[in-house]
Amino acid sequence: MEKIIFHPFAPPVSTELYFGEGVLSALNPDGKKFLIADQGLKELYATDLAKRIGAELLTIPSGERAKSQETAIHLMEQLFQLGADRESTLIGLGGGAATDLIGFVASIYMRGLPLILIPTTLLGAVDAVIGGKTAIDTSFGKNLIGTLYHPQAIFIDLNLFQTLPEKERLNGMAEILKMGLIYDRSLWAKESSPALILKAIRAKISIIEQDAKDHSLRRILNFGHTIAHALETVSGYAMDHGEAVALGSLVESHLSRTLGYLSDNDFNEIERVLSCFPLKLPKNYSRSKLFEAMKHDKKRGGGAPRFVLIDRIGHAIAFDGAYCRPVSPSELEPSLDWMEGQWSK
Amino acid sequence: MEKIIFHPFAPPVSTELYFGEGVLSALNPDGKKFLIADQGLKELYATDLAKRIGAELLTIPSGERAKSQETAIHLMEQLFQLGADRESTLIGLGGGAATDLIGFVASIYMRGLPLILIPTTLLGAVDAVIGGKTAIDTSFGKNLIGTLYHPQAIFIDLNLFQTLPEKERLNGMAEILKMGLIYDRSLWAKESSPALILKAIRAKISIIEQDAKDHSLRRILNFGHTIAHALETVSGYAMDHGEAVALGSLVESHLSRTLGYLSDNDFNEIERVLSCFPLKLPKNYSRSKLFEAMKHDKKRGGGAPRFVLIDRIGHAIAFDGAYCRPVSPSELEPSLDWMEGQWSK
Repeated sequence: MEKIIFHPFAPPVSTELYFGEGVLSALNPDGKKFLIADQGLKELYATDLAKRIGAELLTIPSGERAKSQETAIHLMEQLFQLGADRESTLIGLGGGAATDLIGFVASIYMRGLPLILIPTTLLGAVDAVIGGKTAIDTSFGKNLIGTLYHPQAIFIDLNLFQTLPEKERLNGMAEILKMGLIYDRSLWAKESSPALILKAIRAKISIIEQDAKDHSLRRILNFGHTIAHALETVSGYAMDHGEAVALGSLVESHLSRTLGYLSDNDFNEIERVLSCFPLKLPKNYSRSKLFEAMKHDKKRGGGAPRFVLIDRIGHAIAFDGAYCRPVSPSELEPSLDWMEGQWSK
Repeated sequence: MEKIIFHPFAPPVSTELYFGEGVLSALNPDGKKFLIADQGLKELYATDLAKRIGAELLTIPSGERAKSQETAIHLMEQLFQLGADRESTLIGLGGGAATDLIGFVASIYMRGLPLILIPTTLLGAVDAVIGGKTAIDTSFGKNLIGTLYHPQAIFIDLNLFQTLPEKERLNGMAEILKMGLIYDRSLWAKESSPALILKAIRAKISIIEQDAKDHSLRRILNFGHTIAHALETVSGYAMDHGEAVALGSLVESHLSRTLGYLSDNDFNEIERVLSCFPLKLPKNYSRSKLFEAMKHDKKRGGGAPRFVLIDRIGHAIAFDGAYCRPVSPSELEPSLDWMEGQWSK
């Protein structure tokens, strides 16, 4: 018998991120290119941008509906018909759902095309575009199909966020607050500002520069998300991701306290801040549906859902490098009782 | 404006390859596992193997039909239903088509599951399972959707090849001969033997250890494949990959000579050896269909198909690190005239 261990060589990946007002004017990629935009942005930005940079314009449905197998397949068929080849650049313009879907298509079309992402929401800027997670949803749950695929460049143009509705600002703030809870207390409970946004982006970059593959530290970014994803699934993706994350972060902070890791003081502070969000449970919520939805959580392993937990504001618990621990239904139930008591329909 | 360049950290990938008679008896993965097998192998190997290692058994259609979007989606739905999570191992058993499809599913299911591949054909062993290329086909062409995703382990058990039909042996030999033409003359025109198979595997490993991402040297593995993939597309995937590669290698050797790179002597030697294959054009072949099919070749760029070319037996031309060059229709036509003259229907 021969045993050979080999190491396929791939050059290190790097991403250039441009941040500021008007940075989009510097976007000018070479070669054949396709601008893929949320259809709601066609009139506002996409038509003009495509014209300026000489790109073919393709559109996808707005919001979470973009992240379907059907949209992915339809988009790839259009790219084949238009002759997109391995050197064509895909440029994704939209919120987190759009960039998740466009990143997924870029990663599997001819085994990977050059990709540039332009987030148009605060949530997309501080979370979805950084770190290479791409995804589509399935009837079994959110983000269950996807890849890790890093864009060549990211353009975060603050001018695009000026017209965002208040609700979108809250969606982004929910992720920034989550970063404040798990990693950097200086991101906790501050007013939104360009400096805060940039700091949140740098925090996420710092995490994925240590663990892009989601085998250890990166898992802390999932704080609040075990509950949030399950709530979104139960709602049929009608619930905003930011609202789900705010509620999920609060419930998982409650769980951190119940399990004896987090002080009452810190929990009360977290409750005070996150309660300012317009929190509510999905109309068709039931606990059995929530447990059913958690069955497909990607952090599962060995049968029980696993949760990221915090022991103070600004610090997730390492658990010997796993950065999450299994939580049994009976351990979780007090926090669900509390959640249902606070936000019953 | 802030410009940040960052480098997402991912640990280097490694693959363990076991080669020899009976090596499959050492396969014994931990945890939850799913054996996904070509349905034609269910009775022969798969049922027993699944039982021995305690895996759930799932089957996929035999041959190139496995590589469809429908098969990929159906397989993932079964995995969701059976509760496969991110720590579940997928074990793929079958020929190159099966392992391409199973690798693709493993790479996109929850952003990637541990993967073990067991090739059951010589072609799969020397080519498909090494180097992480996964793929499915589309109506626009072969392998147009896929990822680069490396298995944790590969088991090449020579006992599985003993019952292969002669046709399958020829399919594998076509790829070994191609390796002889582009990289290592000692693989050219030798009798099949375990030592030759292992040498071909080591040659492919050596190439992907230099360039797994297919940006330079790895492209030489596509010698013969620009024509081969187009012929397979024209045939509706009815043509065997090995036969297509033998014919494609011969035509692209002819092209290498016509363009002034390859000597008459070497071409005559190549013709003598490859003519022993049962070469024929697809029933519905036409030159316009061939050009249409080449439009979607992944090596395209800047409008013209690009070909890997050789300047002697055992050596592909570097072309300044591109390892391929654009070939215009008028440059290609003499070789197509010759092909059609030799193997008209």
